[in-house]
Amino acid sequence: MEEFNLHLTSDIHAASIANNLLAAAIDARIMHEDVLEDADLSELGLRRLNIDKYSVTWRRVVDVNDRALRNILTGLGARTDGRPMQTGFDIAIASETMAILSMSESLKDMRNRLGRIMIGMDKSGRPVTAEDIGVAGAMAVLLKDAIKPNLMQTCEGQPAFVHTGPFANIAHGNSSILADRMALKLGDYVVTEAGFGADIGLEKFFDIKCRASGLKPDCVVLVATIRALKMHGGGPAVVAGKALPKAYMDEDLRLLDEGVGNLRRNIEIARLFGAPVVVAINRFSHDTEVELEFVKLAALAAGAEYSVVATHWSQGSAGAAELAEAVTKACLKPYDMKLLYPLELSLKDKISAVAKKVYGAERVIYELPAERQVAKYEQIGLGQLPVCIAKTQFSLSHDSKLKGVPKGYELPVREVRISAGAGFICPLAGEIRTMPGLGRRPAFMDVDLDGDGQVVGMF
Amino acid sequence: MEEFNLHLTSDIHAASIANNLLAAAIDARIMHEDVLEDADLSELGLRRLNIDKYSVTWRRVVDVNDRALRNILTGLGARTDGRPMQTGFDIAIASETMAILSMSESLKDMRNRLGRIMIGMDKSGRPVTAEDIGVAGAMAVLLKDAIKPNLMQTCEGQPAFVHTGPFANIAHGNSSILADRMALKLGDYVVTEAGFGADIGLEKFFDIKCRASGLKPDCVVLVATIRALKMHGGGPAVVAGKALPKAYMDEDLRLLDEGVGNLRRNIEIARLFGAPVVVAINRFSHDTEVELEFVKLAALAAGAEYSVVATHWSQGSAGAAELAEAVTKACLKPYDMKLLYPLELSLKDKISAVAKKVYGAERVIYELPAERQVAKYEQIGLGQLPVCIAKTQFSLSHDSKLKGVPKGYELPVREVRISAGAGFICPLAGEIRTMPGLGRRPAFMDVDLDGDGQVVGMF
Amino acid sequence: MEEFNLHLTSDIHAASIANNLLAAAIDARIMHEDVLEDADLSELGLRRLNIDKYSVTWRRVVDVNDRALRNILTGLGARTDGRPMQTGFDIAIASETMAILSMSESLKDMRNRLGRIMIGMDKSGRPVTAEDIGVAGAMAVLLKDAIKPNLMQTCEGQPAFVHTGPFANIAHGNSSILADRMALKLGDYVVTEAGFGADIGLEKFFDIKCRASGLKPDCVVLVATIRALKMHGGGPAVVAGKALPKAYMDEDLRLLDEGVGNLRRNIEIARLFGAPVVVAINRFSHDTEVELEFVKLAALAAGAEYSVVATHWSQGSAGAAELAEAVTKACLKPYDMKLLYPLELSLKDKISAVAKKVYGAERVIYELPAERQVAKYEQIGLGQLPVCIAKTQFSLSHDSKLKGVPKGYELPVREVRISAGAGFICPLAGEIRTMPGLGRRPAFMDVDLDGDGQVVGMF
Amino acid sequence: MEEFNLHLTSDIHAASIANNLLAAAIDARIMHEDVLEDADLSELGLRRLNIDKYSVTWRRVVDVNDRALRNILTGLGARTDGRPMQTGFDIAIASETMAILSMSESLKDMRNRLGRIMIGMDKSGRPVTAEDIGVAGAMAVLLKDAIKPNLMQTCEGQPAFVHTGPFANIAHGNSSILADRMALKLGDYVVTEAGFGADIGLEKFFDIKCRASGLKPDCVVLVATIRALKMHGGGPAVVAGKALPKAYMDEDLRLLDEGVGNLRRNIEIARLFGAPVVVAINRFSHDTEVELEFVKLAALAAGAEYSVVATHWSQGSAGAAELAEAVTKACLKPYDMKLLYPLELSLKDKISAVAKKVYGAERVIYELPAERQVAKYEQIGLGQLPVCIAKTQFSLSHDSKLKGVPKGYELPVREVRISAGAGFICPLAGEIRTMPGLGRRPAFMDVDLDGDGQVVGMF
Repeated sequence: MEEFNLHLTSDIHAASIANNLLAAAIDARIMHEDVLEDADLSELGLRRLNIDKYSVTWRRVVDVNDRALRNILTGLGARTDGRPMQTGFDIAIASETMAILSMSESLKDMRNRLGRIMIGMDKSGRPVTAEDIGVAGAMAVLLKDAIKPNLMQTCEGQPAFVHTGPFANIAHGNSSILADRMALKLGDYVVTEAGFGADIGLEKFFDIKCRASGLKPDCVVLVATIRALKMHGGGPAVVAGKALPKAYMDEDLRLLDEGVGNLRRNIEIARLFGAPVVVAINRFSHDTEVELEFVKLAALAAGAEYSVVATHWSQGSAGAAELAEAVTKACLKPYDMKLLYPLELSLKDKISAVAKKVYGAERVIYELPAERQVAKYEQIGLGQLPVCIAKTQFSLSHDSKLKGVPKGYELPVREVRISAGAGFICPLAGEIRTMPGLGRRPAFMDVDLDGDGQVVGMF
Repeated sequence: MEEFNLHLTSDIHAASIANNLLAAAIDARIMHEDVLEDADLSELGLRRLNIDKYSVTWRRVVDVNDRALRNILTGLGARTDGRPMQTGFDIAIASETMAILSMSESLKDMRNRLGRIMIGMDKSGRPVTAEDIGVAGAMAVLLKDAIKPNLMQTCEGQPAFVHTGPFANIAHGNSSILADRMALKLGDYVVTEAGFGADIGLEKFFDIKCRASGLKPDCVVLVATIRALKMHGGGPAVVAGKALPKAYMDEDLRLLDEGVGNLRRNIEIARLFGAPVVVAINRFSHDTEVELEFVKLAALAAGAEYSVVATHWSQGSAGAAELAEAVTKACLKPYDMKLLYPLELSLKDKISAVAKKVYGAERVIYELPAERQVAKYEQIGLGQLPVCIAKTQFSLSHDSKLKGVPKGYELPVREVRISAGAGFICPLAGEIRTMPGLGRRPAFMDVDLDGDGQVVGMF
Repeated sequence: MEEFNLHLTSDIHAASIANNLLAAAIDARIMHEDVLEDADLSELGLRRLNIDKYSVTWRRVVDVNDRALRNILTGLGARTDGRPMQTGFDIAIASETMAILSMSESLKDMRNRLGRIMIGMDKSGRPVTAEDIGVAGAMAVLLKDAIKPNLMQTCEGQPAFVHTGPFANIAHGNSSILADRMALKLGDYVVTEAGFGADIGLEKFFDIKCRASGLKPDCVVLVATIRALKMHGGGPAVVAGKALPKAYMDEDLRLLDEGVGNLRRNIEIARLFGAPVVVAINRFSHDTEVELEFVKLAALAAGAEYSVVATHWSQGSAGAAELAEAVTKACLKPYDMKLLYPLELSLKDKISAVAKKVYGAERVIYELPAERQVAKYEQIGLGQLPVCIAKTQFSLSHDSKLKGVPKGYELPVREVRISAGAGFICPLAGEIRTMPGLGRRPAFMDVDLDGDGQVVGMF
Repeated sequence: MEEFNLHLTSDIHAASIANNLLAAAIDARIMHEDVLEDADLSELGLRRLNIDKYSVTWRRVVDVNDRALRNILTGLGARTDGRPMQTGFDIAIASETMAILSMSESLKDMRNRLGRIMIGMDKSGRPVTAEDIGVAGAMAVLLKDAIKPNLMQTCEGQPAFVHTGPFANIAHGNSSILADRMALKLGDYVVTEAGFGADIGLEKFFDIKCRASGLKPDCVVLVATIRALKMHGGGPAVVAGKALPKAYMDEDLRLLDEGVGNLRRNIEIARLFGAPVVVAINRFSHDTEVELEFVKLAALAAGAEYSVVATHWSQGSAGAAELAEAVTKACLKPYDMKLLYPLELSLKDKISAVAKKVYGAERVIYELPAERQVAKYEQIGLGQLPVCIAKTQFSLSHDSKLKGVPKGYELPVREVRISAGAGFICPLAGEIRTMPGLGRRPAFMDVDLDGDGQVVGMF
C-alpha cells in the first residue's frame, strides 16, 4: 500500500503547487500594479488588470489538517511584503485544481479549464481568470504528469486506479473521469467510489460527473452497516478511545427500526437517478443474524433490487462474492438515467432542487454574502453551471446532529464559491469547513519508525 | 532533466509536509490546551506543555515564491479556528527539516534530530521540542524515503546525486552528507557544490558540514566570470529584459582591475581553511583573451594553485578537461584543514569570527530581539552550536549594494533563529528574507504546454 | 449654540472614557491571567475570571466617523502588548455607557447598571460583568457629572435640556429620563425628541423608555416634509453638492401621492401605541399650497388628530404657533398607552412583533451567530429584556432602497448584542453599521478659523 | 481639585478628537482614492494625493492606558470598511496635537502648525500634511478653546495654570508657552514644571521650549528625595502593596553615598545650560537629619547655589518658605543661557549631543528603520528641527535597570518619529512605549461612589 500513498501524494502535491503558484501570482500582481505606472507595465508586456482585492476568492491550500490556517491575514510587514489580504487555506483536496484534474477529458481540456479558473473580479466587476494572470500555462505544466492515472493493485493483486481524491463533503467527491475511461477499456466491470452517502457523493456523481462525461453507471451499490443505522436510530455517540456502547454490541431491533429509515432514504435518493440499487450490508462481528435479516428485507422493501451481506473486511474478496453476483445481475437491468435538474434552471432553483429532493429541506436560506455571490455569478453568465453543495456527511441535512431522516428544516447557505474551471458552483451549507483541524490527540502521535526503520503505529 | 525535477521535488515535498505537520500540531496543541482541563489531558495520555505562544519560532513553508506569506496572522475566526498568532511562511528549502535531511548520517540519526527540533519555549522558559509535541515519529515516517539519495545523470550521462537543496544565503547551502558518502564509495572523484561565493556556501561547507561529517575535501574550485568581476568593479547594473550594457560586451581592463579584488578575497577566504584552490574562469562569449589572461594571473598571484579557463557551458565536458586536470593535480597536495572557530567560543564570538575573517566587517551589531535570542540560546545550553549566517549573496557584506571588497562596516543582526535538530543557529544579517517574492513579470508567464502537450518557454 | 456643543461633547466624552476604560481593563485582565499563577492572583486580591476571549462583546468607541476602526485586530506585538483579539470600535453614542446615562433614574441606579454590564462569558459559559472586572465603580466616578442634565437655551431663549444623544438607528434614540423628569418639574409642556421615523425612535420611546420610566406622553408629533414624501414616492436621489432634481422644485402630486403612503404608515405605527397624533408639515420654500393641502388631508384621513403646516425653520417660534395649539388640544385627549409586546414573550417573539407590526416584514431570518446569541441570552436569564433593533433610517425596512411602505419581505438579523446594564438587547438588522464612515468630501473640509479666530464654513 | 481634573481633561479631549479626526480623514482619503477615478475627484474639488500607505505615521490616541492598542490592524472587513493598515494608538498626551497646543504662540500660529503636521509621504516620496488632507482648519476649530489656559487654584488658594500635559518620557514634557506668558504678565515669580529628571524634562525645557519661545528661566529647582537616591545607590526595589524595605526606613549613609552621584549628575546637567541651581530635598518622614545634611552638602559641592530641605508635603506652603527664599536669591544671579546644540547640526549629531552630554552614552546605534527615517527627514528638509528623545524616566540611560550614573553604553534608537507641526523630531530610545499599560491590579479597582454619591478610594 506504500506505493499507493506515494502516488496519491503526488496528485495532491502537484495540485497544491499549481494552486499556490496561482495564489502567489495574484498577490504579486496586485502589489506590483499598486506600485507600477502604466508605462512600466506595458514595457513588461503586461496590461493593468485592476484586480479588486475584495473580490479575490482564490485561496491557498496545504496538505495538512491545519485549522489555524482557515482564516488568516497575509501581506503584512513592509511595502515589499505584499498587500494585506483577508484570506485562508483549504485542505489540498478541496482545491479547484484537484477538481480540474478529476474532471478533465484530456491534457488540452485541462489546460483550457485551468485558464478559465476565475480568481475574482476587476474593479469594473468583470471576471479575472488564471489566464489573465498569465499562470495557466505554468499550472498546466505542473499538472501534466499528475493527470495520468496510476495503476495500483489491491492487497489481493487486483488492478486499481487511484486518481484524484476530492472528498464529497467539501468537494465533488469522485475519482477522475480519465481513470474511469481507462478502466472501462481494460476491464469487464469497473467499480468506482463516490464519497459518503447517496446525498453527497452519489448525487454529485450523477449530476456533475456523469452529466459532464456522458458515462452512465449500470447499477448503484449502497453500503450499509448495522452500527451506523443504530446511530441514525438514536443510539449513543461512539467516541474514539472509549468502549463501544452496549447498544452496538447487543441485538437491538428497536434502535435498528428507528434507524433503517436512513437507509430507506438513501435508496430512494439513488432511485431518483433511475439506476438499479444493490445494498451491501458490511457485516461487523457483533451483528446478529436477525439484525442482518431485518435490514436486508427493509432494503428490498424500499426498492433495492438486491440486498446482500458482505464480509470482505474479514474474508477478503471471497466475502464479496455474493455481492459481486448481485451486482452482475443488477447490471443487466436496463434503465433511463435521470438527473435532478436541467442546467437551464437558475442557480437558486438548482440548489433548491438538491436541497428539497435529496436533503429533505423545506427551504433554502441565503446569508447576505451568499445572496450577493449567487447574483454575481448569474450576472456574469455562470448561472448554467451545476451545483456542488458542501455539507456535513453526518446527516442528510446540513446539521450533523439531525440523525435519521430530517424533514422540513431550513438549509442555510453562508457562502457560494465558484469553480469556473472545474465547472460548478459550490454552496457551503451550514457550518461545513473546507479545512479540517487536528483532534485532541491526533492519530499521528502513535506513528514512528522502529529500530529497523519500519513504520509502526499506522493501524 | 525531467526526472531530476521530479526527484528534487519529492525531497522538498516530503520536507514541506513534515514541516507543516509540526506547525499544525503546535497550533492545535495550544488551542486544545487552552480549552481542556488537566483531567481531560491525562485521559488522553497527554501532559500539559504550557507552550508560550510568543516564543514559538517554528514557521510554515511553501514551495512557491510567495512574499505575501512572509508576515501573516493565523488562527483568526471562531473559537475552534485556532488561536491568533503572528507568524509567517518560509520557502520550503529554508526549512529545518530540509537541513536535517541534509545533515543526517542515518535514518536513526534523522529520527533523533527531528525529535530535537526546538519549536519554542514553555511558560517557564524551558525548550519545547518536536518530541514533546509527539510528532517527531510521524515526521520521520514522512521523510524516510526522502533521506535516500537519488541517482540521476547529466546531459552527457555522467552519474550525479541530487539530494537536498538548501540555498546558502538563507540556509546551510550544501547537498546531503549521505549523498556525498555514497558517491565516495562509488567514484574516484566526487565534486560537490557549495552555494554562491566562498563567503557563504564554502564557509558553511567547512564550518558546518565538514565539521559534522568529519570529511575533508581535497581541493576547492572557485568559479569566476569576467562579467561578475566587472560588476564588482563598479560596472552598470544588468537588468533582465534590457540590453547588456556595453561595459560587459567590450574589453574593459580598468573595470576588471577594480573588480578582481573580489576574486582575490574569495581565494583568501578559501585559503583560510587550508585547502588548495583552483580557479575556473567560466568563459562568456564576449570575454577577450586579454581579460581572461589578466584574471588567470591575478588568481595565481592571490594564492590559487591553478587558474584555468573553462568552456563547458558551450562545449560540454570537453570544455572542462583542463579544469579537471588542474583539479586532479591540486588534489595531490596534502594540507591540514582548518576551521574558522572552535565550538567552545560563545555564539557572539563565533558570529564575530565569521563576520570579521570572512565578511570583512569591523563589528557586529545586534538588534534588541537578536540580543535576547542569543542570550536565551546560551542559557539553555545551545551555545556550543556552529553558526549559519543568512545574508545576501550579492556582496561579501550584508548589503547587496556594497560591491568589491567592503571593509570596516558594521554587520547588523536582526534575528537569530535556532535549528537545534539540524545542529546550528541562524543569525539573519541585514535585510535578507527567508521567503523570496515573485518578480514584476515572473518567468513562469512564458511557460506553457503546446498543442502536443510539450513544455514550451522553460528556457 | 456653541455652549450646546460643548456640553453635548462632555456627555459623550465621559461615556467614551468610561467605555474605553472597561475595554482596556478587560484586555489587561485577560493578559495578566494568562501569565499569573493562582497564587499571584490571590496575593493581589483577585480571583481568576477565566474570561473566554471569544465571548467578549465589549467594543471600544471613538467620537469620530472612522470606518477603518469597524473591524480591527488588537493586542498584536510582543508578549506584553496584550493578546490578539478580533474586535472593533463603535461611534461613541452607540456605547452602552451612553445608553445607561440615558436610562438611569439616579446616581445609584446608574452605578448598579454599570455593574450589570455584561462583557462576555467565562469559559464555563457564565456571564462576566463590569462588576467582576472591578471597573464599575471607576466608571461611575467618571460619569457622575455627566449624568446631570445641562440647561441650555434655544436661539430665542427658551430653556432646553440637551442630555445624552444616542441615535435611534444604532441605539435607543432618546434623551435621558432624568432630563425629562427635571423638565416635567419645571415646565407646563415638555417636548422631547425621538430620533428618525415612527418605526425607529418612536417605537423605542414607547417600548423601551416609557416602559422603563412609567412616563406616558400626552401626544405624538410626527414631522413630515413634501420632499421626503416625494422621495418615498419614487423621486430621484438627492445628492449632496448637486442641483436639486426638478421633481422637488415643482409641484408633482403624482409623486406625492405615491409617497404619502409612508406618512400614513408612520401615523398607523404611532397609533399602535394609542397616543393622539399631530402631523407637522415642515414647509420648504418650493412646496406649493396644493401639495401642502394634499398632505394635510391625507394625514387626517390616516388618523391624525390634527395636521398643520409649520414654518419655524424660516420664522422661528412664530412659525410653530399653529402646531403648538394643535398639540395643546391633542394633549387633552385621554388615551390608554399600549406597548407592542409584553416582556414575557421570548426574544424572538419580541423581535418578530416589532418586525411585523412596525416594519411590515413577513418573517425574521437569523444568521447563525445571531441564532446562537439569542439562545445564549435566553439561557442565562436575559430573555425578559425589551428589544432595541438597529436598522437603517432610510426605509421602514432594513433595506435603504425599499422606499414607500415595503411589505412581505424577510428581515435578516445578523448579530444580536446585549446591553444588560442599559436593559435591552440589540438585534442588528440588515447591513446597519454601528460606526459610520466619512464621505468622499467630508463637510469638515470647509470648516476653518478665519483671520480673527472666528469659525467659518460650519453651515 | 475637581475643577482641575475637568479642565485638564478638556485639553486632552480636544487634542484627542482633533488627532483622531485627522486619522479618520487619512484612512478615508486612502479608501476613496482607491475607488474614485480622477474625474470623480475633481468633481469633488479634490486632487489625488496618492498617499503611500506604508509611509503613514499618524497614529490614533485614546486617554486610557490600553496596551492592547499599541499594535493593531485596522480597516479589516469589507470593501467599504477602509483599507487594512498596520498602526496603533498612543496615549493622548503623546499626540502631536497636544504638543502643538503647548508650543503655539497664538491661535494663528496653532492653525499654521496644524497645517504643517506631516502624516506621511505620497508615492513619490513627498511629504503629505494635514493641510493636504483638508482637515487642519477643522482641527483648529476643535482646539480653539483648548488653547486658552485655565486659571485654577491650589489647595491654599494660590493661582495656578494647568495647561497641556505632555509627559517628558514620551513627549516634550512641559506646560504651554501661552500659560507661561500669561503667568509672567500676572505674577512676580512664575514656577513651571518640567517632567521627571534633568535628563528628560529639563533638557527639553531648554533645548525645545526656551529655544522656541525665547524665554529664559532665572533659576532651576531640582527636587530630590532620600529614598530615590538610595534606590539609585542600589537599594532594593519598592513594590506597590508591599512593605517598604528596611533600607528606606533606617539611616543608611552608605547607600546614600552610592546614590548621590545621580543627584550630582542632575546638577551637572542643569549647569550645562548655565542657570543657577537650587536643590530642594523633599523630606520623607523616615529621613534622618544626618541623611538630609549629607545630601544638602553634596548638592552644594556639586555646584548647586542653594540646597534646602522642603516640607510642603506635610506643612503646605510654610514648608516651602526656605526654598522660596533660596529661589528668590538664586534668581538674582545673572547668567548666559546655553543650549546643548545648534539647530544647524545634522539630526544624528543633535541626537548624539544629547546622548553623550546628558545621558552619558558613548555612542548611538540606529536600527534599520530609524536609520531610514533620519535620512528621509534630512532629505525633505526637516533636518533643522530640535530633537525630543523618548526614553525611560527610571535611569539616566535608556535602560531602566541602569541606576546611578551609567556611562559608556550604547543608546539604541529603534524608531524616529516626526512632529513637523510641533517642531521637533522624536527618536524612541530603547524599549520606551508611547502607550502605557494597566498594571496587574490597577488603582481604579479601589475607586467607587459611596451611598451618598461621593468618590471613595481615590487616594
